[in-house]
Amino acid sequence: MTKRFVTTKVEVEGREETKVVELPARDPAPWGADADLHIVGQRVARMDATEKVTGEARFTADMQLPGMLYAAILRAPIARGRVTRLDLSPALELGGVRGGVSIDDVPNVKLDGVRLFDRDIHYAGQPIAAICADSLDAAERALHAISWECEHEPHVSTPEQALHQNAPKIRPAGNTARNSPRVMTRGDVEAGLREAEVTITREYRTPVALHTALEPHGAVAEWSGGFLTVWESTQGIFMTRAEVAKAFKLPLSSVRVIKNYMGGGFGAKNGAPHSTYIAVALAKKLGRPVRCILDREGEQTDAGNRPATIQRVTLGAKRDGSLTAIKLEATVTLGIGGWLAGPARIYHEMYRCANVHSTEAFVYTNTGAMASFRAPGHVEGAFGLECGMDALARELELDPLELRRRNYAKDDQDKKRAYSEKRLDECYRLGAQRFGWGHARGEERDTSGRFRRGVGMASLTWGAGGGPPAYATVRINRDGTIEVLTGAQDLGTGARTVLAQIAAEVLGAKVSDVRTVLGDTERLPFASNSWGSITTASVGPAVRVAAEEARDSLFEAAAGMLDTDANDLESKDSEIHAKSNDKCLTIGQVCEKLGDVMIIGQGSRGPNPQNTAISAFGAQFAEVEVDTETGRVRVLRIVSVHDSGRIINPTLAESQLEGGVIQGLGYALFEERVLDERLGVSLNPTMHDYKIPTIADVPKIDAFFVDGSDTAANHTGAKGLAEPPIIGTAPAIANAVAHALGVDVTEIPLTPWRVLEALTTS
Amino acid sequence: MTKRFVTTKVEVEGREETKVVELPARDPAPWGADADLHIVGQRVARMDATEKVTGEARFTADMQLPGMLYAAILRAPIARGRVTRLDLSPALELGGVRGGVSIDDVPNVKLDGVRLFDRDIHYAGQPIAAICADSLDAAERALHAISWECEHEPHVSTPEQALHQNAPKIRPAGNTARNSPRVMTRGDVEAGLREAEVTITREYRTPVALHTALEPHGAVAEWSGGFLTVWESTQGIFMTRAEVAKAFKLPLSSVRVIKNYMGGGFGAKNGAPHSTYIAVALAKKLGRPVRCILDREGEQTDAGNRPATIQRVTLGAKRDGSLTAIKLEATVTLGIGGWLAGPARIYHEMYRCANVHSTEAFVYTNTGAMASFRAPGHVEGAFGLECGMDALARELELDPLELRRRNYAKDDQDKKRAYSEKRLDECYRLGAQRFGWGHARGEERDTSGRFRRGVGMASLTWGAGGGPPAYATVRINRDGTIEVLTGAQDLGTGARTVLAQIAAEVLGAKVSDVRTVLGDTERLPFASNSWGSITTASVGPAVRVAAEEARDSLFEAAAGMLDTDANDLESKDSEIHAKSNDKCLTIGQVCEKLGDVMIIGQGSRGPNPQNTAISAFGAQFAEVEVDTETGRVRVLRIVSVHDSGRIINPTLAESQLEGGVIQGLGYALFEERVLDERLGVSLNPTMHDYKIPTIADVPKIDAFFVDGSDTAANHTGAKGLAEPPIIGTAPAIANAVAHALGVDVTEIPLTPWRVLEALTTS
Repeated sequence: MTKRFVTTKVEVEGREETKVVELPARDPAPWGADADLHIVGQRVARMDATEKVTGEARFTADMQLPGMLYAAILRAPIARGRVTRLDLSPALELGGVRGGVSIDDVPNVKLDGVRLFDRDIHYAGQPIAAICADSLDAAERALHAISWECEHEPHVSTPEQALHQNAPKIRPAGNTARNSPRVMTRGDVEAGLREAEVTITREYRTPVALHTALEPHGAVAEWSGGFLTVWESTQGIFMTRAEVAKAFKLPLSSVRVIKNYMGGGFGAKNGAPHSTYIAVALAKKLGRPVRCILDREGEQTDAGNRPATIQRVTLGAKRDGSLTAIKLEATVTLGIGGWLAGPARIYHEMYRCANVHSTEAFVYTNTGAMASFRAPGHVEGAFGLECGMDALARELELDPLELRRRNYAKDDQDKKRAYSEKRLDECYRLGAQRFGWGHARGEERDTSGRFRRGVGMASLTWGAGGGPPAYATVRINRDGTIEVLTGAQDLGTGARTVLAQIAAEVLGAKVSDVRTVLGDTERLPFASNSWGSITTASVGPAVRVAAEEARDSLFEAAAGMLDTDANDLESKDSEIHAKSNDKCLTIGQVCEKLGDVMIIGQGSRGPNPQNTAISAFGAQFAEVEVDTETGRVRVLRIVSVHDSGRIINPTLAESQLEGGVIQGLGYALFEERVLDERLGVSLNPTMHDYKIPTIADVPKIDAFFVDGSDTAANHTGAKGLAEPPIIGTAPAIANAVAHALGVDVTEIPLTPWRVLEALTTS
Repeated sequence: MTKRFVTTKVEVEGREETKVVELPARDPAPWGADADLHIVGQRVARMDATEKVTGEARFTADMQLPGMLYAAILRAPIARGRVTRLDLSPALELGGVRGGVSIDDVPNVKLDGVRLFDRDIHYAGQPIAAICADSLDAAERALHAISWECEHEPHVSTPEQALHQNAPKIRPAGNTARNSPRVMTRGDVEAGLREAEVTITREYRTPVALHTALEPHGAVAEWSGGFLTVWESTQGIFMTRAEVAKAFKLPLSSVRVIKNYMGGGFGAKNGAPHSTYIAVALAKKLGRPVRCILDREGEQTDAGNRPATIQRVTLGAKRDGSLTAIKLEATVTLGIGGWLAGPARIYHEMYRCANVHSTEAFVYTNTGAMASFRAPGHVEGAFGLECGMDALARELELDPLELRRRNYAKDDQDKKRAYSEKRLDECYRLGAQRFGWGHARGEERDTSGRFRRGVGMASLTWGAGGGPPAYATVRINRDGTIEVLTGAQDLGTGARTVLAQIAAEVLGAKVSDVRTVLGDTERLPFASNSWGSITTASVGPAVRVAAEEARDSLFEAAAGMLDTDANDLESKDSEIHAKSNDKCLTIGQVCEKLGDVMIIGQGSRGPNPQNTAISAFGAQFAEVEVDTETGRVRVLRIVSVHDSGRIINPTLAESQLEGGVIQGLGYALFEERVLDERLGVSLNPTMHDYKIPTIADVPKIDAFFVDGSDTAANHTGAKGLAEPPIIGTAPAIANAVAHALGVDVTEIPLTPWRVLEALTTS
């Protein structure tokens, strides 16, 4: 069928852009909250569980190709300076070493404003050259044989240093980003502050956090003539394809990017990283496949991070708690580059308030570049806003939850439009009930003993509506088994399973008859990056449309075989049943009769409604116990309740919530890149020294969803849910610690010395 | 769009079957002979030429996977008997050996009536067991360590032996195939013979010929949990998938078959052969990937052959040459199994004759099973029929070409329906002209010298219309590059290039912007086996429909950008041009504006018209020189002219003709499996001893097509052309030898001793 298009306006980074959007061939009636669904909503087991548990799943690092070589990267040990001499030849003479690349081999690659292998050193960990050899050992040993020298120049480790008048120029255009500071405003914040009866001001600080995906960045590249295949651990096969094609001046049809299984991305794997270009350049130069997987130190220093922030927050309110002003002055430490993910937006979105004003200064330093990290900006912002709300509640002597209820935002206030659906009130109600909030918060606390307990909570929101373009194909094999084909990715989230459930639901097939095939730019239809919690909400509707098209064709074929017409048919458990005459055939029987005629359905994602804001919401509750002697914080339990529209698979969805809560717990208590400011070098670029939570740190987590279906968001009713659970976790824990100790908590992670310091200075 | 279906009757092996056929979404107007086409019909260079020439093309035998093992096959050295003892354990104890399989490991595999690894030996070369090891060397060495014994039983090498009353039972049901003899009749042949004024009777013999593809059969198999991937050198990825899934009781969606490049199939690679099951079974048993590639001896003894025939031919004609009766009694040697590809059909099709009668006895012997081989049946039949026609012409003292012209068949006489198009008369005219037939044939020949020259010709026909089902996807990337996706195969024929040309033509794109992706059951839409010369005629129309859908969507999107409407647009050289206002954008510019909205078109192949026969035709002319002292025949030149409807790519098409002529030349002069009848063992299972033509044997070949477009066959106008050129070559050469020597030639290959014998006995 000829496609139809509409031209629509979409918001990109705060600006409206005109975009051509495809109208899908079908626009099915939405699955409402009471829709009679049999597979969608069920706790179907993760479809790739077995191969992952048995070790049979082949990740990028498991790839082996005939003649494949292994790459290792020489990295700058200083934060700023210049390579004065670089001679690879002593390394190239070593046994097993096959070749090397430096700046001349990758003329067109620039990431975060820095050319790959630049002779000017901009941060410690910056790639200087790469060597490849028959084994990884040989390649790594050869790095030590490279003959090179560099000169040190003064560097910048902190935003304060960067903004100092005598600071060295970190980037040619200066030490702050273009378009910085970014100012957003609604109403008149100064008038709002004058109107306020109570005002609080605090300065909150959040650390540089590292994604620490268990699978590091990495690629295997192979050229065959002018055709390039890249196996990559990526959240965006098509984006990686576009970036690599551009760098190596190839048509898109000459690059194939494949991603099978993935051990996490968390936002750091959205495009082609250094390792990919290095693998591709080496493979091109040497005419052999090359594998370049970051070691843990490379991963922790040169693969992105969540930027540190300083958030100066002023909240003004009436005595009854109603907010009159929200003001934020934030500084965000980008490192050497990145995009402008700031904490401000959640200050504008979360609560009803006529007067909101924010400024965000984005500052460069001589450290590795920031990258998107699970709910970028909102995680940092929620810490400042939600701790600020608790400080205000203390000032008002109001229950923190009650304060939030009194400032419930019914609409998207900036854009003056309604939410497609918002059930945060239900999250508050159910969360408080399950947590026993009223009782726990009201309880008389023992403030004399060594161990003190407290409870805290936080709200959260996240735009999680997904959107076009996204395409899917659903096809039925001769034996009735079904494949869902789409160029999306499964980062470990469960996309494979969720998309299969949607297809099975539509086709009335057993879910065990459905398989999802993802991650191949060459052979699967386009889907965008798996970022922004969009995969289910973007690709899910495309799968539904494709499955409906396939089902209608299937019924059309079956009708003749069952002596009826297609409208008379219904299917369940892979059986097609004629209502009028009770005749029945399995899907497999129909397809066997069709022979090799293949039922194929195509689907695409339709545009979002323009007059509606689509967001997910949630509330998180934490109870902690603080050891006032050691400063150690133990989280005892978390209740995490979310409004994400329809939940396609509660088991997988809750598993995402748990993962987000645990990652948020790490952010609250342990995770922090520690820099030696004098040298500008990370002191903890290992998983031993950079602490993420282990199972011993994980409390009882009661994570669940409010029932619902956001039918105005899209016709599956599902919204994204991967990022929200990390957003509210750290402030809920920090507020619980504040509650336990009766002090302000203004900085995370809450390492023992920060807790002890808070106790001392309060 | 919902598919529409029709129920239609198709002929399968001479029987009519009811089949559900899909109606394609579009049925475009056919490209007539005078259609204004720019890319279709051009001599576009083979798209995979570079990677093949540079050795970068990865064939199945080039596959390497982590931990991959190599398999070797123990084969029966005797033609009939029983394995009385088989103990793999001594082999398994050798260094590097990882495991073995025998009959219990493959309970469900039966090919050509024989269970894989059967303890009963049915032919020499039959697999008995297989071993796999870390290297092929280790596996092959280990075969010698297997401890086993077998008992010999009397075997059958020839059809005469098989039909003897005391013959051992080759198969439980007897020594001839079910449905044998097959009898086909039209009119009353005995009446026709009575009516005849001239009658000739001859007995013609054709040998067992071997496909001898340069790439042997082979597979690499890998299991991941319950999912199986097979890399296979196959003409039918979907058929291989079906067969393997059935044998290992897997759903179709749990098997993926991949074929990238291929070094020939010629009909022997239509389904899963022994090597595939062995690789899959070993990989399953050992939990590691396994490669099983036949060695040349395995390829020449156990991978199919063209069956030997004996054809007793009687032709009756009036004095003016008009045929009154064609009678054939044929014996076909199937070996241990195969399907009933007999020589008779061309006797019924080729010439106008009211009375035709044929019987074909299909006989089993204790030798390797037959398999389809480039124009199965017709190649054998054409030798008997066309040599018979020359014998009749001699009897009638008529020019052989004139005799054929006088018996021109205008219709499909058996089915009483017209041909979609038949331009054999034009082939005769142009071929005779280019060859100088009249002059050469009429010339006074020197019959006294040692070297004698002669000319001969033959006609041919082949059903080459293709048909449904076949599916294709055409998609356009953001930079305007285009991919054609279809689950067909390119055996080396040029399908990749031809399908890209069709898409480029429809889209008005540069052909260099188009890439074809083939050979992946999991990710590409269904196409059937690449057999019966059907790929262009089956998949080509599906690609055309898919490209039209893509073009219409592309124009729909471009119309707004060019301030006009879609009907006003035309495209050429990848530029879209508005006729009314002269505005212009490249396809890439339009797609860049679309962003990630992906233009995708779907296409399918529509049913063939039921009241029309679709066939290709041709005539071949040969000049030979015979050394009457040595008996050596040298072919001096061949003219090969064909009616195959529209030619999409003359270079590739002519290259197919040349290949077919050369393979036919081998069949005429050299190729013959030589059996030691006493032992039932092949004496020449190597490429050294089984002679295929080398470049030194290849004469000047003038191969071309008559212009045309068979618009009643399908809307591209193209018919198949891969098989026809082998059909007429051997009889043309044999007729030329007969002409040179003035003797009857009744048996091929025309090895020196046969030529000398013919000279002696004439």
